[in-house]
Amino acid sequence: PVKRGLSLDEVVNGILNNDRPILARAITLVESNAYKHIEKAQQILNCILPYTGKALRIGITGVPGAGKSTFIEALGCYLCDLGLRVAVLAVDPSSSITGGSVLGDKTRMEKLTREKNAFIRPSPSGGTLGGVNRKTRETMLLCEAAGYDVILIETIGVGQSEVVVRSMVDMFALIVLTGAGDELQGMKKGVMELADIIIVNKADGDNEQKAFIAQKEYNQILHYLRPATEGWETKAFTCSGYYGRGIDTIWEEMKNFQKTVQASGVLEKRRQSQVRDWIYAMIKDQLEQKFFNHPEVKKVLPETEQAVITGQQPVTQAVKYLFDQYEQ
Amino acid sequence: PVKRGLSLDEVVNGILNNDRPILARAITLVESNAYKHIEKAQQILNCILPYTGKALRIGITGVPGAGKSTFIEALGCYLCDLGLRVAVLAVDPSSSITGGSVLGDKTRMEKLTREKNAFIRPSPSGGTLGGVNRKTRETMLLCEAAGYDVILIETIGVGQSEVVVRSMVDMFALIVLTGAGDELQGMKKGVMELADIIIVNKADGDNEQKAFIAQKEYNQILHYLRPATEGWETKAFTCSGYYGRGIDTIWEEMKNFQKTVQASGVLEKRRQSQVRDWIYAMIKDQLEQKFFNHPEVKKVLPETEQAVITGQQPVTQAVKYLFDQYEQ
Repeated sequence: PVKRGLSLDEVVNGILNNDRPILARAITLVESNAYKHIEKAQQILNCILPYTGKALRIGITGVPGAGKSTFIEALGCYLCDLGLRVAVLAVDPSSSITGGSVLGDKTRMEKLTREKNAFIRPSPSGGTLGGVNRKTRETMLLCEAAGYDVILIETIGVGQSEVVVRSMVDMFALIVLTGAGDELQGMKKGVMELADIIIVNKADGDNEQKAFIAQKEYNQILHYLRPATEGWETKAFTCSGYYGRGIDTIWEEMKNFQKTVQASGVLEKRRQSQVRDWIYAMIKDQLEQKFFNHPEVKKVLPETEQAVITGQQPVTQAVKYLFDQYEQ
Repeated sequence: PVKRGLSLDEVVNGILNNDRPILARAITLVESNAYKHIEKAQQILNCILPYTGKALRIGITGVPGAGKSTFIEALGCYLCDLGLRVAVLAVDPSSSITGGSVLGDKTRMEKLTREKNAFIRPSPSGGTLGGVNRKTRETMLLCEAAGYDVILIETIGVGQSEVVVRSMVDMFALIVLTGAGDELQGMKKGVMELADIIIVNKADGDNEQKAFIAQKEYNQILHYLRPATEGWETKAFTCSGYYGRGIDTIWEEMKNFQKTVQASGVLEKRRQSQVRDWIYAMIKDQLEQKFFNHPEVKKVLPETEQAVITGQQPVTQAVKYLFDQYEQ
């Protein structure tokens, strides 16, 4: 996808100078599954690595209908007004199945799309969660090299996508609606425990009072949870993404978070352990891909699984049999 | 370890007739890491498989000091009085490191040890969590074949041991103390969400009123959590393991649980998916063992990891390099 004739140097310099068409093409390379693209993408990443790591990386999740896009647009525009540069990415492991993709419909963020300091990129369609994971991480690095100050990563909230996003960001924001008790029933287990900030959205009109009550309820529940980040107390805020109200306070809190974890060294530790975990996750992913895509394993797996489930074969013996097929 | 001269048939029959020395020796075989023992153990398991699956499998966890042993002893003795047979196992992945092991000190359950219908087995020292996991599962099957009606599996609560125990039992019990708010701070994230019953222990003497308050608090918190088991509402109970009070009510609840999940088909589905997960977990475990114990990988892993963490190498490239070493 990088234009014929563009040298590695030209691509790297283009990224470092925030040449948006070049940045977009480099991301397309990173998102490609073709072997020669992967190789080229790795060369680019190798060159831009020293220029990465300076952005504040924020993950944003929420139940469907919580108004994630509206909130991201409001926050993004607010940051652009402050003179900051904002990249919005997305993780949606389902996009390869459904055909759709988060942020795919850019009209959802019409105002932000027009900001020259904002860069919006829909979720890669990576097939596996591991693929989407790698592509999003590498895209984030490219955006950082291009000088974006804040990276917002939206999650669609399907499968393990929150955990994946959590594993690549500095701070994790959870967008919720009013009616904490009812809503929590529909919220995925453990998601609240990942959050560094909880944002009760749609605090406007008739809903405003209910939003304040929900904020109080969330703060009570938070009291029972262990903090997601060492040395940081997660608190609930209200906002109206639609009217852009409460965004300033939330951004203050986010900056506070950044200052706190930078000073305590928690940020550096988190990023290092994220990279370490990422190496191991990639290795495991590849080991499993190779094993389960092995033709001999694929051939006998269903019947072996069935034999174990119906109690005809002990698990250990079945696994040994599968490895015999794999290694023969 | 099985006495020389004892044929496979004799061992299998010994187990089926609850010949305790033979059962104990078969477990020792299952716990061995020696290749020829593993093979022999698999033959035994193969024969006893049709006689397994009839027990109620209960996992028991709790914060240190919550009185898990006291509770297990009280419940175990109560069940023996009812004419039931009880096996008590333990999962303690740390026992190979610390040298100690859960239930290692049998005097902790002096009374239960003397019951002829109780069988107590300390945690295997398996090294890895995967090893302990396999050994405990297979020990559970041996005990079921020997006719034990209830299997209680204690977890020491270190690392991932709750999740491992959760993945092999029908019902999961969490033992807590009074002062829910404070205590939850020290409780591991997510453990409450695994529980099918919460037991506030040490509800005696001065502590009794506080225990009732804690029970109420836990029931409130449970309202915000998704049920651990489909179609079952987790509730908090109080008991005094020391005085044996409240044990009857708790056992009623456990029998209720069994009846409910049997009738709804959730039990069968859970056990099938546990076995399926177990196959995949074992495969992943072995794939990783082979990879990370490969001499060439071991040689370059530390420096490669460091190069990635310090930003000198992109992750994807580092992983490719490691696989080149592994597959060369």
